[in-house]
Amino acid sequence: MYLKGTHLKCLTIASTTKKIHTHVCKKKSSCSLYYHAQVNFSCKCLSFEGYPYNLDFDFSVMAQFQNFSINNLGDPFIESNYGVHSRQFEVAVLDWFARLWDLQQDEYWGYITNCGTEGNLHGLLVGRELFPDGIIYASCESHYSVFKAARMYRVECVEIDTLVSGEMNCADFKSKLSQNPGRPAIVNVNIGTTVKGAIDDLDRIIRTLEKCGFRDRFYIHCDGALAGLMMPFIKQAPKVTFKKPIGSVSVSGHKFMGCPVPCGVVITRLEHVKVLSTDIEYLSSRDATIMGSRNGHAPMFLWYTLNKKGYRGIRKEVQKCLRNAHHLANRLREAGVSAYLNELSSTVVFERPHDEAFVHKWQLACEGSIAHVVVMPNVSVEKLNNFVEELIGERPRWHEGGGFRVPCVAKDIGQENCLCGVHDKKLRVV
Amino acid sequence: MYLKGTHLKCLTIASTTKKIHTHVCKKKSSCSLYYHAQVNFSCKCLSFEGYPYNLDFDFSVMAQFQNFSINNLGDPFIESNYGVHSRQFEVAVLDWFARLWDLQQDEYWGYITNCGTEGNLHGLLVGRELFPDGIIYASCESHYSVFKAARMYRVECVEIDTLVSGEMNCADFKSKLSQNPGRPAIVNVNIGTTVKGAIDDLDRIIRTLEKCGFRDRFYIHCDGALAGLMMPFIKQAPKVTFKKPIGSVSVSGHKFMGCPVPCGVVITRLEHVKVLSTDIEYLSSRDATIMGSRNGHAPMFLWYTLNKKGYRGIRKEVQKCLRNAHHLANRLREAGVSAYLNELSSTVVFERPHDEAFVHKWQLACEGSIAHVVVMPNVSVEKLNNFVEELIGERPRWHEGGGFRVPCVAKDIGQENCLCGVHDKKLRVV
Repeated sequence: MYLKGTHLKCLTIASTTKKIHTHVCKKKSSCSLYYHAQVNFSCKCLSFEGYPYNLDFDFSVMAQFQNFSINNLGDPFIESNYGVHSRQFEVAVLDWFARLWDLQQDEYWGYITNCGTEGNLHGLLVGRELFPDGIIYASCESHYSVFKAARMYRVECVEIDTLVSGEMNCADFKSKLSQNPGRPAIVNVNIGTTVKGAIDDLDRIIRTLEKCGFRDRFYIHCDGALAGLMMPFIKQAPKVTFKKPIGSVSVSGHKFMGCPVPCGVVITRLEHVKVLSTDIEYLSSRDATIMGSRNGHAPMFLWYTLNKKGYRGIRKEVQKCLRNAHHLANRLREAGVSAYLNELSSTVVFERPHDEAFVHKWQLACEGSIAHVVVMPNVSVEKLNNFVEELIGERPRWHEGGGFRVPCVAKDIGQENCLCGVHDKKLRVV
Repeated sequence: MYLKGTHLKCLTIASTTKKIHTHVCKKKSSCSLYYHAQVNFSCKCLSFEGYPYNLDFDFSVMAQFQNFSINNLGDPFIESNYGVHSRQFEVAVLDWFARLWDLQQDEYWGYITNCGTEGNLHGLLVGRELFPDGIIYASCESHYSVFKAARMYRVECVEIDTLVSGEMNCADFKSKLSQNPGRPAIVNVNIGTTVKGAIDDLDRIIRTLEKCGFRDRFYIHCDGALAGLMMPFIKQAPKVTFKKPIGSVSVSGHKFMGCPVPCGVVITRLEHVKVLSTDIEYLSSRDATIMGSRNGHAPMFLWYTLNKKGYRGIRKEVQKCLRNAHHLANRLREAGVSAYLNELSSTVVFERPHDEAFVHKWQLACEGSIAHVVVMPNVSVEKLNNFVEELIGERPRWHEGGGFRVPCVAKDIGQENCLCGVHDKKLRVV
């Protein structure tokens, strides 16, 4: 065995440096061989910008729960025989989200998932079960889990073009719908795409479906991974609501809200989920989730956060993020870095730094010639300023020979946002 | 909003009683309204027998990790840009399991899942991708996630009869295989069924496949939820090993090993997983898992347990469980309660108590006319004795009118194990 005969030498946590070292000693004839698993969390956290995780949380009051194997087996609304669960917390959180999206308590079903992907897998599965011969339509900037779902579920998937902003191109959607008028449409609507934070135009998508004659032959799943929780708190944002003909919404719990474990929420109409349900006598519960055993700690973290912050607290954080994101975009542009920010998003897209060490240090997520920073509640103005200063300072060094030239990112973020020699208007006027 | 305007009044943990009370005050004009979410974990734990969760763990040394949002995004073997992960721990745990099942480090792929269900979903998905026109064969006593997978993946599923022991009836398997000789077989093999802890005869299943001409047109997934981790430590047990033509094995992490969060391990052959992989530039990683974001705490719990207990420690626990399970089965039979115990299992099956309060108190999982107790490392002989005494004491009261008669469970556990008036040999001899 790999670890056979090993024993735990020490698991020390040096909390001053926040470096976590673990040493496991292979107890052979002597203790001379060490297996080191060394994790350095804190330095990563300090420069953490590219991923949309809110790291501003403190759950120390809940540390004692770690002594319990909490498992919300089966359906959140049906008590199973297994007693160590946190269903009360889960249902309280689900109630909160159902109200946020305008579904009455007796009209919704949902559960707390392991991550945004599970929410998408669930929403799209409900869609497929309602329309077994449906086609999944999703913009090409949708999260990869949408295409994974299509493959897993053996459903044809049609990719829709996007605008420069990253949102679904409804003209292309219309043209692709018209190629399959006989088969129902299962539509993935992005409430904040992964890379550009773009919001698909839900109202226009619904109008397009209706105009194309899909009146009652469509199912809409809204993937609200990050922004699904931000939209309701922004006055001018288009409303994601079950008053519109949508079938399900999912969000991630560890993104905007912040949580030590990945988790998410999916809400659908009660009438829809019946197509999925199977009674499991063994659990004396029902099985309508993707997973069977479910993390019972996650609902408690979410419940705690919702209670601690309240509606007003979350709104304040959303406003702060949007404000700081605008600040970052402006600072970048002032410094001559091409940048783009969707109006209702806190995701700032800009030219990709040509230095892997810099990307790694700041934890930037990159795609093609662009990178992004997701401005979360734990990202301060000071941190953003430091980031911009370091970027500006180091940038010239990344382009050897022939002097520095601003790279062209017009293809990714549009000519009007590109500050390269060809597209920058200020330069052209000169 | 449901929780709008509420604020956290107190979250107190009375650790002496181990009752956890939470009070949230709705801050209106006064604090007179309370929303109570009250969870009583400990009393459930004390009488916890029906579910196969090892509650004997202490991870207090790791409590500080709860301050980190640890996420093993994407593939365990490819570093993603996101820095706060526990991949080193995950890979160490996977290495351990791969060796346990005889796969070399450069020949396997796997990951730490959210639960046993995810392991089954993954194994069967690999099978389907290798054999797109395959049929899933699974015994009718397989875990419900197997049938869920078939439905999700749109794969035809053929249920195989079981013997009284709960294991797959290979004669029926042979006959069902012969009805579809032209289509490959994706076989779910149970290493410990949920209800009876039965071990399907892997060698016989492989021989049956070969005899029926499926030589290289089959894929075997071993669902080892609980017993997959126990078998390797029992000398006389049939070996689950990749030296045999199997494709994948999954186990639960929170069952035999004990863990505060549901988790599991799935191991497959590296060559197989290539059919699933998709490069995700955004993560600078690969996507071959079911979920995207993955709990980074679980690998650390598993790693800690493996190191602390070591191979020998786990073997000792397995032996203790088998011994205690035999003790329980014998005590029940002596007391006139029909009981059944598979030779290599710690799951004791017996007549279902006719009292829901008793079932709930002892957290028994029931199906039809039987219930079971899963003897885990945290279940002591004293607790088992208490359980039997209470069962014997209360049993006569559950059968009103006409005096107590031992119920017949011959259909479920076989005539030879049934102590009812008709089947009990001792009675018949008289």
